[in-house]
Amino acid sequence: MYVIGERINGMFTDVKNAIRGRNGKVIQDLARRQLAAGATALDVNVGPSVSDAEGAMVWLAETIRAVTGAPLVIDTARWEVMSAVVPKIPGEKILNSSKADPEIASQYVELAAKNGAGLIGLTIDANGVPGSVDKRVELGAQLITIAMEGGLPMEKLFIDPIILPVNVAPKNPAQCMDAILQLRAFADPPPHLLLGLSNVSQRCSNRGLINRTYLAMAISRGLDSAIMDPLDTELMNTAITAELLLGKMIYCDSFLEAARHE
Amino acid sequence: MYVIGERINGMFTDVKNAIRGRNGKVIQDLARRQLAAGATALDVNVGPSVSDAEGAMVWLAETIRAVTGAPLVIDTARWEVMSAVVPKIPGEKILNSSKADPEIASQYVELAAKNGAGLIGLTIDANGVPGSVDKRVELGAQLITIAMEGGLPMEKLFIDPIILPVNVAPKNPAQCMDAILQLRAFADPPPHLLLGLSNVSQRCSNRGLINRTYLAMAISRGLDSAIMDPLDTELMNTAITAELLLGKMIYCDSFLEAARHE
Repeated sequence: MYVIGERINGMFTDVKNAIRGRNGKVIQDLARRQLAAGATALDVNVGPSVSDAEGAMVWLAETIRAVTGAPLVIDTARWEVMSAVVPKIPGEKILNSSKADPEIASQYVELAAKNGAGLIGLTIDANGVPGSVDKRVELGAQLITIAMEGGLPMEKLFIDPIILPVNVAPKNPAQCMDAILQLRAFADPPPHLLLGLSNVSQRCSNRGLINRTYLAMAISRGLDSAIMDPLDTELMNTAITAELLLGKMIYCDSFLEAARHE
Repeated sequence: MYVIGERINGMFTDVKNAIRGRNGKVIQDLARRQLAAGATALDVNVGPSVSDAEGAMVWLAETIRAVTGAPLVIDTARWEVMSAVVPKIPGEKILNSSKADPEIASQYVELAAKNGAGLIGLTIDANGVPGSVDKRVELGAQLITIAMEGGLPMEKLFIDPIILPVNVAPKNPAQCMDAILQLRAFADPPPHLLLGLSNVSQRCSNRGLINRTYLAMAISRGLDSAIMDPLDTELMNTAITAELLLGKMIYCDSFLEAARHE
């Protein structure tokens, strides 16, 4: 499971304050703790209320780079920020994210390929989040084609079918799983299939239960990556156990520990 | 989710002692508690060490019938016991279980159809538990055909692809899920797909975690029934949440409570 830790995000108060005060210790501590808990990569998002988004993003990335070589997932919806910061950030990185419209996706694929970076592509276009499985698959296939044409290898492409909260979009979680199952068959090797997991339970009761149940279900359909909270121990245990049950690791009595330290 | 409560089984000491002493209160209490926790039906198994299996089974069934009209799942591997007790047990019932060999399965289908009962069919034959997905699907399809020919409607057929413990058969859990996904497409309406869930974690550490993670994964592939412990609250919560995420119920903040009392 390619776990992308979600905690370094300016939407969280501790991170917002750390960015404002340029308090690197808070950020480095969050980076270390997420990696120790089993994260493969770290999402980096300055949040909505920062004035100098470009400067904040570069500071965050360099601060994290000082303690780890783990891939950084550069999370901004603004092209001008993305295109400015990506060449400045050393080491492995993934662009988060591009929409599926051909002119937009081509631009992001070019930026990713030129910088040896990965790319998260969303199955969303100018018409918004698709209301059907077919449209999600169509937009995902479009992203795969554009990535191939742009020289971005499939192992660097992450397709996100966009999960909406189950309390406002009751059919959406099932549709995303159907799309994942179909999109895995579109290329060999397949691209990564990714979700921004926490979104499924926004403003719901029993958030942890909903998140970990959906994670197990989606992994069973072919999800192999998620932006999620690795500090949620039960959630990480679910991710590890799901991979055990898919035969991706061999059982031993301490399989939870073994998976975190492999 | 068609949850079959597993607790009235002579393998458990409290049930074994209750059968020996014909202590109906223990059995009725287990029946009531499982149903209150969300079970749809109750498995009834006298266990391996009873001398008069037929008498014990009829006593168990009548004892439970005195407090509930819920379907009883008559669980014995011995044909002579099954064929003797089924006509004597009043109300809804399901035969647990038949193997897939044509001569055996035909006999069970006939017994079930004649008594208006359901039937659990195992994807196992004289050669034992299949080592491949294809063989499981083949035996499942054989059970579907025999049921159709014998006049047993699909909503009364439960196909069990036989889950083995992940610590001794690491590829088995994934194979069962693949077989479930394929077998659901074999008839319209499809038969029920069922697992004896606890078996996946026999002699493993973290049994509860393995059971509930596998349950969510298998439901995502089309499992709609399981013999399991409804008194395991986290497991039942997972089953309910998985159905919510498949769009089978509408979210409300008290969805866990609502599902148990529907």
